[in-house]
Amino acid sequence: MEYDGSHFCGWQSQPSGCGVQDILEQALTQIACHPIRVITAGRTDTGVHAFAQVVHFETDVARADTAWVRGVNALLPKSVSIQWMQLVPDEFHARFSAMDRCYRYILLNQPVRPAILQGKVGWYHAPLDIVKMQEAANMLIGEHNFSAFRAAECQAKSPVKNLRKLEITQHGNYFIFDLCANAFLHHMVRNIVGSLIYVGNGKQVPSWMKVLLESTDRKKAAPTFAPDGLYLAKIAYDPKFQLPEFANSHLLLA
Amino acid sequence: MEYDGSHFCGWQSQPSGCGVQDILEQALTQIACHPIRVITAGRTDTGVHAFAQVVHFETDVARADTAWVRGVNALLPKSVSIQWMQLVPDEFHARFSAMDRCYRYILLNQPVRPAILQGKVGWYHAPLDIVKMQEAANMLIGEHNFSAFRAAECQAKSPVKNLRKLEITQHGNYFIFDLCANAFLHHMVRNIVGSLIYVGNGKQVPSWMKVLLESTDRKKAAPTFAPDGLYLAKIAYDPKFQLPEFANSHLLLA
Repeated sequence: MEYDGSHFCGWQSQPSGCGVQDILEQALTQIACHPIRVITAGRTDTGVHAFAQVVHFETDVARADTAWVRGVNALLPKSVSIQWMQLVPDEFHARFSAMDRCYRYILLNQPVRPAILQGKVGWYHAPLDIVKMQEAANMLIGEHNFSAFRAAECQAKSPVKNLRKLEITQHGNYFIFDLCANAFLHHMVRNIVGSLIYVGNGKQVPSWMKVLLESTDRKKAAPTFAPDGLYLAKIAYDPKFQLPEFANSHLLLA
Repeated sequence: MEYDGSHFCGWQSQPSGCGVQDILEQALTQIACHPIRVITAGRTDTGVHAFAQVVHFETDVARADTAWVRGVNALLPKSVSIQWMQLVPDEFHARFSAMDRCYRYILLNQPVRPAILQGKVGWYHAPLDIVKMQEAANMLIGEHNFSAFRAAECQAKSPVKNLRKLEITQHGNYFIFDLCANAFLHHMVRNIVGSLIYVGNGKQVPSWMKVLLESTDRKKAAPTFAPDGLYLAKIAYDPKFQLPEFANSHLLLA
């Protein structure tokens, strides 16, 4: 599923019903005619978006594939859209079968704020040095204790994650940060982006990133950057499940 | 100026104050401390966006350049943003000095509706043939009477316009229609896109576009396509005015 998280309080179900999960479960329940609970691989915070969130649920009812896609979409708000569905074997679990998760942060870097993509891109006004940011980023690749980039409220069992990819590319006035890992800590992407900006604007040198990482001290890192430009971009599963390729053609995934 | 037209009733000032012009004039008036009226080169309809609308106005007050950009932006809603300002000679007129206007239509072509870019891209669910659409589009290039693509309420003095460019490109599941002309009739871009879709989906053959054009009969053309994907993309002026280059780096202008 794809969604614009601007007007949700994040993925997770809340008593007030403001989570993306709430409105999805309501729609699925209406199609299934019995209560549906969904499981997902990657949670998002308030204001964070998703190109390709994968969820699974269990049901005994038989419906046409289109009922689970277009039928559900007809019941969802315009900011949420199911992209595809597939029957999966019992052993499949959206969360525990996920092998790799990728997030993308889109940052507009120019003196004036965005208008058309406001809420959908982060914004930083002063010039940034991509070479220095990539040099700092490279120090985070691999298996590390990422406590320095972990939110206080993070519930993960371990702060040790394996960051497989952290690539920064430039497209005109935009910087795209692509991060992939086996799993992420709460606010980890936004804390890393905030700290990379401290390197890009010259406030810190690239080697500060290694010092920061090794300190495992959240208080030393930069403030958490805005949720606006953050997208859950891809969740990878074992090829044996033969899930469809993600819609990599999304204009913001260019 | 750049704006997301989703929540405006178009560019033009309205008694209810719902036009982009209304909120811009209010902000400029506040900075200038005297009533400001603005002139623009290209009007937009309800729900139509702009990457680069150019406006001019007259004032005797002296303000720092940043006051006319960041100061005004601080008074505008998040969906509108001034990109740059420049003092121009008296002979400059945003409308009459404009030599060329370009619009872009962004169409998502896939079975399921968009979510993240809803309201910012048009959507068509069935497959489209880009070769046939471009073949049909080529028949519109040049100086023609475009009455077949003219809205009933169009106030232009003449239906004869010179369409310099109509290029269709594909980016994954997206089709981008770029049109440039000396001027456009009301709804002309959306009527052309609607008719090109009739060719792309096989409902009509490419040569139908020539028959349609020559008929000068609006009733023969396809329905006006949705405003969602339409952007005023560029207004070109004589190089002697030395206006800044437009921000072609916009992610949706990729």
